[in-house]
Amino acid sequence: MPDPPAALFVHRRKIIWADSDPARIAYTGRFPNFALEAIEAWCADRLGLDWFRMHQTLGGGTPFVHMSMDFRASLRPGDELLTSVALRRAGRSSLEFSVIGRLADGTLSFEGKFVCAFVDDATHRSAPIPEQFRAAVMHELALAKEKEGWGSAPNPAGASGPGPP
Amino acid sequence: MPDPPAALFVHRRKIIWADSDPARIAYTGRFPNFALEAIEAWCADRLGLDWFRMHQTLGGGTPFVHMSMDFRASLRPGDELLTSVALRRAGRSSLEFSVIGRLADGTLSFEGKFVCAFVDDATHRSAPIPEQFRAAVMHELALAKEKEGWGSAPNPAGASGPGPP
Amino acid sequence: MPDPPAALFVHRRKIIWADSDPARIAYTGRFPNFALEAIEAWCADRLGLDWFRMHQTLGGGTPFVHMSMDFRASLRPGDELLTSVALRRAGRSSLEFSVIGRLADGTLSFEGKFVCAFVDDATHRSAPIPEQFRAAVMHELALAKEKEGWGSAPNPAGASGPGPP
Amino acid sequence: MPDPPAALFVHRRKIIWADSDPARIAYTGRFPNFALEAIEAWCADRLGLDWFRMHQTLGGGTPFVHMSMDFRASLRPGDELLTSVALRRAGRSSLEFSVIGRLADGTLSFEGKFVCAFVDDATHRSAPIPEQFRAAVMHELALAKEKEGWGSAPNPAGASGPGPP
Repeated sequence: MPDPPAALFVHRRKIIWADSDPARIAYTGRFPNFALEAIEAWCADRLGLDWFRMHQTLGGGTPFVHMSMDFRASLRPGDELLTSVALRRAGRSSLEFSVIGRLADGTLSFEGKFVCAFVDDATHRSAPIPEQFRAAVMHELALAKEKEGWGSAPNPAGASGPGPP
Repeated sequence: MPDPPAALFVHRRKIIWADSDPARIAYTGRFPNFALEAIEAWCADRLGLDWFRMHQTLGGGTPFVHMSMDFRASLRPGDELLTSVALRRAGRSSLEFSVIGRLADGTLSFEGKFVCAFVDDATHRSAPIPEQFRAAVMHELALAKEKEGWGSAPNPAGASGPGPP
Repeated sequence: MPDPPAALFVHRRKIIWADSDPARIAYTGRFPNFALEAIEAWCADRLGLDWFRMHQTLGGGTPFVHMSMDFRASLRPGDELLTSVALRRAGRSSLEFSVIGRLADGTLSFEGKFVCAFVDDATHRSAPIPEQFRAAVMHELALAKEKEGWGSAPNPAGASGPGPP
Repeated sequence: MPDPPAALFVHRRKIIWADSDPARIAYTGRFPNFALEAIEAWCADRLGLDWFRMHQTLGGGTPFVHMSMDFRASLRPGDELLTSVALRRAGRSSLEFSVIGRLADGTLSFEGKFVCAFVDDATHRSAPIPEQFRAAVMHELALAKEKEGWGSAPNPAGASGPGPP
């Protein structure tokens, strides 16, 4: 079994022409998608199942019940966006994520909070967080706490570095 | 000059296959787009200029600085979505909207808050709300106040009806 | 039972900010979506089932095997796009559509050919066109033949008018 | 100056939840976007300027005049898509691309032809291929010719290998 990750998950994507609008910046409506992509990739990396495989394997998914975003700096085609995902809270069935998007030079582009809840496909009712995710969830909560304040740090390089001693 | 509108603006759109995901409901990342479409249509209808014409005519736009959404009920292909747009606050350069999405039968699908700010294209700095929008902005603020609580009313029909006596 | 339609199906949609790119025109990648939306609406209107209901009711769908498009004039936010859908050919399991997009003033924006085939959800194999669609398919083929050349006519108004004597 | 590339350009992307529809496969309307993304990345890699920088630097762009696609195998969330881009023809102002999408195991997903033309932003008229792209265009045409038939080869690994002796 591999060691649990020592750094927050960071998702990379390039901003492209198709993301951008006539004001020559990434369209507002694309930003929630950037954040959701990062959270989906977090699920694959940290829980071991992407959303598609969760439905196939566990017969359930994680619909979102809340999102909020603050936009700090616009993005342009060609920009490399790094989105960090930190698991802030876990309830009986819910997960609350903090997502922070930055340019490669550390410029803050957006901060967001996203909350989802496990739901059973058959009953359409909320379900407890699957047992197989429990250890990873506890680890990610601890990691997010340890890295707290990362969001306001000037340099995303810190996201991949070891925690404080 | 036409009478100012007596009801909140309501934007209609059909949920289609392309909006929907493997869980057979509209994808979370589409909802902010539904809200933004409704706000853009509000601008065209209530301010007289859509975002494209604002840039062409006024040399500026209204980038968003904040969005938040709570998801109450999922949407499926074929659903008719009615999104009401209420102008809750206006600052020197900012507008705060309350958007509420409902099915034709009144079922609440989502509630959101979106905040944008007028920005000059040349200077990239915030600019006061254009003078030509002032009367409409005051009217819409009054209308939103009068209709307050509409969001929690069981029937969207009220959105187009007259205000309380 | 209502009379069968006397005119080709025409789908309307407004081009919005979100459809548009930094060249200030609708993005190329949006055009196939405009055509597909029109074909999905054709299915709902002319066959009586949209794609979602086809899967639910018939246990199958109509994946596309081919698309081709020629782009004649760009589209801008605020443009009203009218897309006509003509059923050109029907095989054992396939349907070939001609789609033509025009502005309200008749300007040709795009012409396309789209081919889909009925596929059974359980077996993932092609299936004959469902019996319940046969009469409508025959009618639409005849209508498309009768209206042939409409694509090159200067005015989309003809799309809704009666056929030639 | 670096050596010119010895292999066709291949663009990689992961198919995600947001690309996928209620039939649990990537939505037809996403495929042209996969191809366009690959062509945009080709421009950045092989011509040295992405579409955004072309407009900024050269005052022009490359709107598309034609696209056609044949769909061979569906894609699912989690699939790794490799799209090769070959420049088949160059006219005075036009470029014709052959794009081929494959899974990592070599399975053919789609084949397409995309044609664009250089257009001057100021005059909205077609313009000759910029002089600075000429050498790269000639090289890519030769590379595409040399690799002809790659599209039907069983293994995409060949895309990055050296040409035949």
